[in-house]
Amino acid sequence: MEHTRRIYSEYNAWLQPKFYLASKALRIRADFDLDFIHQECHLGLIRLWGEIQDSAAYTLQLKMDDLEPEAFSLTPLINGFEIAGGSKTGLLYGVYRFLNRLAAGENIEKIQERSAPQVDYRIINHWDNMDGHIERGYAGHSFFFHNHKFDYDEERIITYARMMASIGINGICINNVNVNKVSAGLIAEPHLSDLAELAALFRPFGIRLLVSVHFDAPMIVGGLTTSDPLDAGVKEFWQAQSTVVYTKIPDFLGYLVKADSEFRGGPEAFGRTQADGANTIAAAVAPFGGLVFWRCFVYNCQQDWRDQQTDRPMAAYKHFQPLDGTFDENVILQIKNGPVDFQTREPVSPLFSSLKNTREAIEFQIAQEYTGQQIDLFSLAVQWEEILTTEIDKGKQLKSLFGQEIVAVTAVTNTGNNMNWTGNTLAQCNLYAFGRIAWNPDLTAKELIREWIQITFETNELGCLTMEEMLLTSRGIYESYTAPLGIGFMVNPNSHYGPNVDGYEFSHWGTYHRASFDAIGVDRTSKGTGFTLQYPESLQRKYDDITSCPEELLLFFHRVRYDYKMKDGRTLLQYMYDSHFEGAQQAEALLQAWETLENRVPQETFNSVKERLKRQLRNAREWRDQVNTYFYRKTGINDDKGRQIYM
Amino acid sequence: MEHTRRIYSEYNAWLQPKFYLASKALRIRADFDLDFIHQECHLGLIRLWGEIQDSAAYTLQLKMDDLEPEAFSLTPLINGFEIAGGSKTGLLYGVYRFLNRLAAGENIEKIQERSAPQVDYRIINHWDNMDGHIERGYAGHSFFFHNHKFDYDEERIITYARMMASIGINGICINNVNVNKVSAGLIAEPHLSDLAELAALFRPFGIRLLVSVHFDAPMIVGGLTTSDPLDAGVKEFWQAQSTVVYTKIPDFLGYLVKADSEFRGGPEAFGRTQADGANTIAAAVAPFGGLVFWRCFVYNCQQDWRDQQTDRPMAAYKHFQPLDGTFDENVILQIKNGPVDFQTREPVSPLFSSLKNTREAIEFQIAQEYTGQQIDLFSLAVQWEEILTTEIDKGKQLKSLFGQEIVAVTAVTNTGNNMNWTGNTLAQCNLYAFGRIAWNPDLTAKELIREWIQITFETNELGCLTMEEMLLTSRGIYESYTAPLGIGFMVNPNSHYGPNVDGYEFSHWGTYHRASFDAIGVDRTSKGTGFTLQYPESLQRKYDDITSCPEELLLFFHRVRYDYKMKDGRTLLQYMYDSHFEGAQQAEALLQAWETLENRVPQETFNSVKERLKRQLRNAREWRDQVNTYFYRKTGINDDKGRQIYM
Repeated sequence: MEHTRRIYSEYNAWLQPKFYLASKALRIRADFDLDFIHQECHLGLIRLWGEIQDSAAYTLQLKMDDLEPEAFSLTPLINGFEIAGGSKTGLLYGVYRFLNRLAAGENIEKIQERSAPQVDYRIINHWDNMDGHIERGYAGHSFFFHNHKFDYDEERIITYARMMASIGINGICINNVNVNKVSAGLIAEPHLSDLAELAALFRPFGIRLLVSVHFDAPMIVGGLTTSDPLDAGVKEFWQAQSTVVYTKIPDFLGYLVKADSEFRGGPEAFGRTQADGANTIAAAVAPFGGLVFWRCFVYNCQQDWRDQQTDRPMAAYKHFQPLDGTFDENVILQIKNGPVDFQTREPVSPLFSSLKNTREAIEFQIAQEYTGQQIDLFSLAVQWEEILTTEIDKGKQLKSLFGQEIVAVTAVTNTGNNMNWTGNTLAQCNLYAFGRIAWNPDLTAKELIREWIQITFETNELGCLTMEEMLLTSRGIYESYTAPLGIGFMVNPNSHYGPNVDGYEFSHWGTYHRASFDAIGVDRTSKGTGFTLQYPESLQRKYDDITSCPEELLLFFHRVRYDYKMKDGRTLLQYMYDSHFEGAQQAEALLQAWETLENRVPQETFNSVKERLKRQLRNAREWRDQVNTYFYRKTGINDDKGRQIYM
Repeated sequence: MEHTRRIYSEYNAWLQPKFYLASKALRIRADFDLDFIHQECHLGLIRLWGEIQDSAAYTLQLKMDDLEPEAFSLTPLINGFEIAGGSKTGLLYGVYRFLNRLAAGENIEKIQERSAPQVDYRIINHWDNMDGHIERGYAGHSFFFHNHKFDYDEERIITYARMMASIGINGICINNVNVNKVSAGLIAEPHLSDLAELAALFRPFGIRLLVSVHFDAPMIVGGLTTSDPLDAGVKEFWQAQSTVVYTKIPDFLGYLVKADSEFRGGPEAFGRTQADGANTIAAAVAPFGGLVFWRCFVYNCQQDWRDQQTDRPMAAYKHFQPLDGTFDENVILQIKNGPVDFQTREPVSPLFSSLKNTREAIEFQIAQEYTGQQIDLFSLAVQWEEILTTEIDKGKQLKSLFGQEIVAVTAVTNTGNNMNWTGNTLAQCNLYAFGRIAWNPDLTAKELIREWIQITFETNELGCLTMEEMLLTSRGIYESYTAPLGIGFMVNPNSHYGPNVDGYEFSHWGTYHRASFDAIGVDRTSKGTGFTLQYPESLQRKYDDITSCPEELLLFFHRVRYDYKMKDGRTLLQYMYDSHFEGAQQAEALLQAWETLENRVPQETFNSVKERLKRQLRNAREWRDQVNTYFYRKTGINDDKGRQIYM
């Protein structure tokens, strides 16, 4: 824990020293075999307080107890404090939680908590390529790989493992789901030994590694002539190779697979089902307790824009719902939160309500691919809270599946080798919030944001409130100046940053808004493409009817005329204009709010966030003007309020 | 001349063997010091005929005569034939012309010609980078450079030099005008010695080399702290460095400079004029007879699309016209044919009619950047004939400036290391035509196309006519399915291939059509941006008035409502629809026409061109549908003829 040197550094993320907190005289007690946890606790307190005055009069007891394995309890005692865990990892979680609550300024006597995670697997997905580049990475390069091989700073890995364990992460997939020929070899030597060394660094923190594997590994790695999952040689390859992997890394968590997706090979190329593919690989790791995370992001990415029958959001359901119940026990279907692709606003994927006999992982994206790219402020906690509390069946919220069908929560991470991990320091809040909601989906965005601010910064209540307000409103602001009402995309192709209203309109990616002179959107109701039919009836009816459809998803489900009257009486077109004018104004307000925080947050953070908020403002104005001009050019109708729309 | 082996090969371009031509028994006579030309003549005849039967009865006399230096004469005599030249190079041109006319099947007794070029400098510009990549190259990689150094096949260079000399080219600039730090070093060792070796290969063919230099070479190469052209140290750098260059290559033609253009440094960065910049460099090469070709492609490439005052086509005139008469004698301003950038259709640059006391080069682009990228068929000869015969002042065509203000004709080449040089074999015709019109701008597209077909292929008259018709109509076809009426662009950003109607609409490149619900185009008349005021009054009036403005340039000069009645009574919108439906149909007809040529052209040519024509057809249909859908979505007005427009 070299970085416990007592200076504020963005590198410490939410594990910061607190200079104004009084140290408590105490003595840590723990059994001999809890040495590592004892040490983590000791170093954590030293980082926090600067020193620990030893006192036999107050004991901080670390112990194992009869709790669920990953659970912990924090209990103030008469002359001491007890942290108990159902396992070493549970105890470690307890220690970090205890440290965080202290860091937030809570009184040690009032800290009381008993907590267990609702899902078994809380997993970070890195989209790191072995050349060091991170796909959709906005915080520098990989801290695992460089130049097609493992190349890391051991100290940084340990710091990262601690950071992840402190928010309850217990699985990390280290390489991009778009596996190439080099990374396909991660499950074989010479890379496998390096992988085992890396796994050893994560192990004390209760974190097990996964790798993304190439569906065609039997050909690429094994030299076979097929990857057909029903081929005996292919099955043998996966078994033999997995035996090698588990011999080196007995607690290896398993494989992540992106198959039949965006030019990746998959079982369908061999006339097999997704279940055939997943089960063959799963059978190979089953004897070792391994898992296969099988992504459901399967759709036709070579669609012709002229084709109005094919509707991309319907694809995952079509591929996977009919296979419900046919996946092996150790297969977990990894389903993106929405049916499209991590947009600012989408409905919840209909797969969650329709898969009844399949273990599921929900996949979020902490990397802000479509949500500001860690330049523009965007608190994902706000989005996640909405998603998790979305009704997915009569009276049933999505989060009620946690610990039921949903056994894993995963996310594409937003980290890189930037000193502050996440490019925008405020984007650390998204990483923190992810771990916390993966552990406990009942936490609200407001709670998560406040927690992160309090444990990360030393600022006064006004400073906290300012940052809290900025983060809480950030998602709505970003949405309003970009592509609101669930219309999505309208971004620059490839980069996915900045406006380009028709950018994906004539492409092969299946993402069309079809804006014409009088209307915009795709009719996805039961009378349109039929997408709503993938939901339970009550939801289908709700989404089908334009008056009961949540307004914020209006243009996801309906094709709507510009003169359509919104709930508040404005036309859709005027709503669009207002949304963009106001959004850009609010982006300016964000910058102004941040400027009040000078000298209330560390100067390096102040400067770097300010620079990003300025870029956000430029971006917001560009969005405002391009979108407004686009609709003005289509309709010839001016803004009601006479604000400037460029020709 | 190893490739004189008598097989048809696309590598020979228009220097092919002719198997059905009868050999003529003759004896070549030439003075001892004309050995090289004698040899070229001999080898050319052997390639053509397979053999030369020696006969003292018929003499082919090669001789020097009292002609203009580069001129030649071809004269049938009683018992022989005389080729005379005003210089060795003139004689060489005569020999190649004689060979080409023989190749075209002409009777030796009837070949009579006396010809001199109208301009002194006929120059090819390579946009080759030293890493081997060619900017806007559609025929493979550089045949000069690889891996940041000279790396070429000497035989290929000689073949290329012969090919270029055979069409009268006498200057070749070997590197990209976008000079980088590596190619900035071409004027210094270690590259300079390599450059001198290359120059020696071209020398016997009458071709002198140029290089593109970096305006900031004083800093990059010289290590100075400024490139200010009025700085004494900078002047000294250019003088000293040029002395080194001319010591190595005494007949070096000079430098090509792209300054203050698209992120390149230039004199304006130092508060100096374009003349200050050009003259400083020109002064350094003047003592050696060197030239500076100074490009006029200067405009604001960081325009805000909201800015309707700035009008990109006006930029070159604004920068250069006020400086008329202030450039040194050995500065040649290199002006693109049109005021924008090598579009399918543009007016002629107003600089040609407005610079009265400045030596000019007209710059064409043989590389089909915006004209089909050597996939789609596009005969540039057709475009060039139109440009050269365009009225630029009362009763005065552009070509009348040849040999007057216009002293050089230059073009960005379409060659690369593909076996056939130009990717699409039919694109060789553009390269051939360029050399020929640079020599003689009075040649018509039809003459040029027919010449090339006849000397390149051995086919019957029907085959000739088919190809001729394909080439002659190709430009109109391409124009009709892409962005007609002078509107330009509408292409995919960066690649510049394929449709993207709004692709450049909100960018910083200054190229906007501003299509709205009711109209399209930019008003560039004297009442609009004022661009027409850059032309002489008669032209200004012609372009200003929508009824006298050439219809094919309607949308270049005017903003026009979709319901505007074209000359034939159709609305502009219907014209757009018709143009795109018919263009795509004609693209199909091109493919069908080519298919009739199987077994009438060599099979390799037949196959590769057919494959490209198929790609062209796909491209044409994509253009048709995207453009039609775009306008339908904007207007809601259907095609009069009820053809399919996709929603």
